[in-house]
Amino acid sequence: MPKNIKVNAAILIIGNEILSGRTQDTNTNTLATWLNSIGVKVSEVRIIPDSEKKIIESLNILRKKNNYVFTTGGIGPTHDDITAQSISKAFGVRYQIHKEAFKILESYYKPGEFNEGRQKMVWMPENANLILNPTSGAPGFYLENVFCLPGVPSILKSMLGSLKTKIVGGEPIISHTISLRTVESEIANSLSQVQDNNKDVEIGSYPFFHAGKLGVSIVLRSEDQTKIDTCNSQILEFIKEKKIQIVDR
Amino acid sequence: MPKNIKVNAAILIIGNEILSGRTQDTNTNTLATWLNSIGVKVSEVRIIPDSEKKIIESLNILRKKNNYVFTTGGIGPTHDDITAQSISKAFGVRYQIHKEAFKILESYYKPGEFNEGRQKMVWMPENANLILNPTSGAPGFYLENVFCLPGVPSILKSMLGSLKTKIVGGEPIISHTISLRTVESEIANSLSQVQDNNKDVEIGSYPFFHAGKLGVSIVLRSEDQTKIDTCNSQILEFIKEKKIQIVDR
Repeated sequence: MPKNIKVNAAILIIGNEILSGRTQDTNTNTLATWLNSIGVKVSEVRIIPDSEKKIIESLNILRKKNNYVFTTGGIGPTHDDITAQSISKAFGVRYQIHKEAFKILESYYKPGEFNEGRQKMVWMPENANLILNPTSGAPGFYLENVFCLPGVPSILKSMLGSLKTKIVGGEPIISHTISLRTVESEIANSLSQVQDNNKDVEIGSYPFFHAGKLGVSIVLRSEDQTKIDTCNSQILEFIKEKKIQIVDR
Repeated sequence: MPKNIKVNAAILIIGNEILSGRTQDTNTNTLATWLNSIGVKVSEVRIIPDSEKKIIESLNILRKKNNYVFTTGGIGPTHDDITAQSISKAFGVRYQIHKEAFKILESYYKPGEFNEGRQKMVWMPENANLILNPTSGAPGFYLENVFCLPGVPSILKSMLGSLKTKIVGGEPIISHTISLRTVESEIANSLSQVQDNNKDVEIGSYPFFHAGKLGVSIVLRSEDQTKIDTCNSQILEFIKEKKIQIVDR
């Protein structure tokens, strides 16, 4: 890979249960952590209901603006699982039985158990490619730059391994954290100057409260270790001047 | 309130730390749970970076499509806190010192501690109204239908109480859950028929794995208890026919 190629992705979380507050989404965090580790920056996440209109609309915006889109949820056997059908419509392709997926599930279940409900899970957009599911059989799929994964966190996690070869990331994003025994307002000005001097490094400032004490974590992110090092030493300089204690969180 | 008035809201989570995977967002769940409890349906959530362009663009779409928008994050004292400034631009109003907020923080901090960093937190859009912060002093604010809250979950939670009087919700959304010892494919067809017969009830089906056993939770949601009851008895009917066990999760 040439250096500094920026690769980005959007995440589309599909499910009424997240919007109603019933379920705490953790798939965003799983996917974001994994994507960043393979050099893919997450540009945006959208959480939308199980609505065909919303899925089509969001997907068609996101897939044009990003190198990759990852959807989660809505690929099970029940009436509220409408992701595969909606994605077929978004691409303007047929929604049909995927022969390989049919074979996989036919041999996954005991004779007679591959019923109508389960057969729904092999309906996919025309020309979809499978994403194998080592946990519960039913595969996800991808079409062009859109990767469709299930909503159940443990199943989603188990499917990421096989995806690695299908995603071409950019330079891995390096992250460096400095945790301080201070409050944000004490370092705000100095940190702002360091950010001005290091435009290519993303500097985040995050207050924390741990073991009864306040602190701030400064997080530096860049594809370039040298730039992080430069930025880091400028921060250490003002920390020393201000006599601020560095801590482990 | 007249019956069945639909009130909706969007949530806009602002913060690189969520998109990098560093931080697991929990504010969506807190806000969604609270909003649903006061009769406000969450239509959509977007998670975006600390980018002025992205904040303005997303906010101006969401505030037109929803009765309310709630933003979290980016209202602290550091350089990466750009929410108030971006929202001023989105509304095309001045970004200026909020006199009441200034007084609150001036008396909150000890003499000499209300420094330049902290003073940044009283800069808000012209005509912003304050949302008081019982935890750490610095207020949030709202302007028209946009409510800006901090990103730190404990502080955000402590500010919701005072917001209740400012949000006019619709009929509270009633939710009823039936948990079954079965798998989704066993009930998919029957459930689909019940959904067809009860279009006004949102029926969700969620597989779970608890104490070593598989199950499915069926969640019914509607503003109308009678409709939930009707739907519930139709579900109980097919459950009985199929001899499926009802369980507590």
